[in-house]
Amino acid sequence: MSATTTPTVKISTSKMESEFKRILLKYNFTEEKATKLAEIYTTNSLEGVYTHGVNRFAKFIKYVVDGHIKPDAEPICIHSAGALEQWNGQLGPGPLNALMCTDRAIQLASQQGIGCVAIGNTNHWMRGGTYGWRAAKKGYAFIGWTNTIKNMPAWGGVDAKLGNNPMVIAVPYQEEAVVLDMAMSQFSYGALDLHVLRNQQLSVPGGYDKNGVLTTDPASIKDSERTLPIGYWKGSGLSLLLDILAAILSSGFPVAEISKTNVENRLSQVFIAINLVKLKNYNSIPQLLQHIIDDYHQSIPDKKNSKVLYPGERVLSVREENSKNGIPVIQKVWDEILGL
Amino acid sequence: MSATTTPTVKISTSKMESEFKRILLKYNFTEEKATKLAEIYTTNSLEGVYTHGVNRFAKFIKYVVDGHIKPDAEPICIHSAGALEQWNGQLGPGPLNALMCTDRAIQLASQQGIGCVAIGNTNHWMRGGTYGWRAAKKGYAFIGWTNTIKNMPAWGGVDAKLGNNPMVIAVPYQEEAVVLDMAMSQFSYGALDLHVLRNQQLSVPGGYDKNGVLTTDPASIKDSERTLPIGYWKGSGLSLLLDILAAILSSGFPVAEISKTNVENRLSQVFIAINLVKLKNYNSIPQLLQHIIDDYHQSIPDKKNSKVLYPGERVLSVREENSKNGIPVIQKVWDEILGL
Repeated sequence: MSATTTPTVKISTSKMESEFKRILLKYNFTEEKATKLAEIYTTNSLEGVYTHGVNRFAKFIKYVVDGHIKPDAEPICIHSAGALEQWNGQLGPGPLNALMCTDRAIQLASQQGIGCVAIGNTNHWMRGGTYGWRAAKKGYAFIGWTNTIKNMPAWGGVDAKLGNNPMVIAVPYQEEAVVLDMAMSQFSYGALDLHVLRNQQLSVPGGYDKNGVLTTDPASIKDSERTLPIGYWKGSGLSLLLDILAAILSSGFPVAEISKTNVENRLSQVFIAINLVKLKNYNSIPQLLQHIIDDYHQSIPDKKNSKVLYPGERVLSVREENSKNGIPVIQKVWDEILGL
Repeated sequence: MSATTTPTVKISTSKMESEFKRILLKYNFTEEKATKLAEIYTTNSLEGVYTHGVNRFAKFIKYVVDGHIKPDAEPICIHSAGALEQWNGQLGPGPLNALMCTDRAIQLASQQGIGCVAIGNTNHWMRGGTYGWRAAKKGYAFIGWTNTIKNMPAWGGVDAKLGNNPMVIAVPYQEEAVVLDMAMSQFSYGALDLHVLRNQQLSVPGGYDKNGVLTTDPASIKDSERTLPIGYWKGSGLSLLLDILAAILSSGFPVAEISKTNVENRLSQVFIAINLVKLKNYNSIPQLLQHIIDDYHQSIPDKKNSKVLYPGERVLSVREENSKNGIPVIQKVWDEILGL
């Protein structure tokens, strides 16, 4: 996207983290929880996922103030069945619950090759990639997903019945990871807003206008509320199945139930970890993966690209850039945080 | 799609099954294997997936004749790590290997809540839904996927580097199942061919023309070989990650390696089953699922649809129709089979 005239400031990682921590302590998080949450929100911002980092922090605090997120709630295991566990998030902070589930899935996988933890009654996990990166950095493959409040029509329908239910898949690669972190809608409402603000058309069709015609015009899509599932009928189906599995496995709520209020909490999530060390071919995995990535990188780029990047590859350069020069934050967003 | 003038015949289920079996026995399959394979190819056709049923049968036999599929090969377990197993398909018939893996994943899940079987060096599994339906009918949730030969460019690239790597997710529903069975390309080359044959445009953009412009014209896409991943960058990323996981987990070959020849075998596949009976909320799952499906069915249909269907719903009516009236087969396809 082209540059915008919205005034921004550059904030150092340590400054951002300490501001987040100051606020979290003020809003009754323990030292330990405040530290972990501040780190997650800062890392998400550092790595370029501003929408689920610094830009979302004030809303997180508002949810705490309004009682939708319980600062002192601890997730509890409600059922254990071998390599599979069911947890109740008790409306605790989403990123902390999700972190616990990731680590627990890893623990189960370390014993049994594969581990699955499903959690219901939890809050927004912010950036799904957080958990994929965490598992991959520990040497595990990871598959996870969450449901959301309804925000997308099913294929063939005009009213929102589905969530955009982000899914994450990650594998360790070199000292980093290949991490896919994708929602089931082609564009989020946040992305549509940004395009409207910048008076830009979408790069590819992102939904339908009021006449049911596929369009790249973000305002028309906001107007019709007919956002597009990725791959039309395919993303619609995938969203439905991810919701069904998340609700069933966690004994939690599906999108239909969550959407009975305007508050996006009581979410259901699934975390699957696979222990690569336990595989026969463990020692040859780095070589195999390098072969795949090398071949992928040899793609002949189209006119708009100089290189074809794998999922998560851009994170590395953004992280480096923001570490060096500070994390770019919209002035208004940062001012609001300073005032909390 | 509108009716076509291609001459078709209606074949009864029993007639089709006995023809398939006759041919399989002739080509050195044992009685047991011939029976199972004939049943799978017939059921796929009965349920409307002709492309991976009757239309593909002659090619399966050709692969046997050419030595790419070994009729007498048995899959072997090369490594076991708790709830996770790695198998070598030894180039045996893909559907039989996949059936074994599904049943083995179910067995592991029956013991440990979740079970994962990965198989390398196997053949095309035909219709992925076969394995989702099988697991779901036994009361298990199922997630599975396969890699393929390269047939789709990565996002930002112009040359095919990715497979369309179909993925299946299934859950039991009533006496049937909700089954998503989707490839990562918006349309297969088979679908493009069919549209060209019928002189039809695609219902949604399916790829790029030679100038890099998104198009619904099937001939232009065949010409450029730039098929579209579902959701553009998203399906491209998902395809890559599914390939990486399939190859790593099975200790098998990735798309890049498979594609070094024009023969689509030596594939890698993953089968994950989850034992719903082991869940705390097992008894309330039917009610929860009914709530989700009921809400989904209340979608307000767009102008082109009278009802919004869930993935796999259409199978029920097609199965009933074809059971009653016979399975429609293109005359030329059936003649070829009779001649085998």
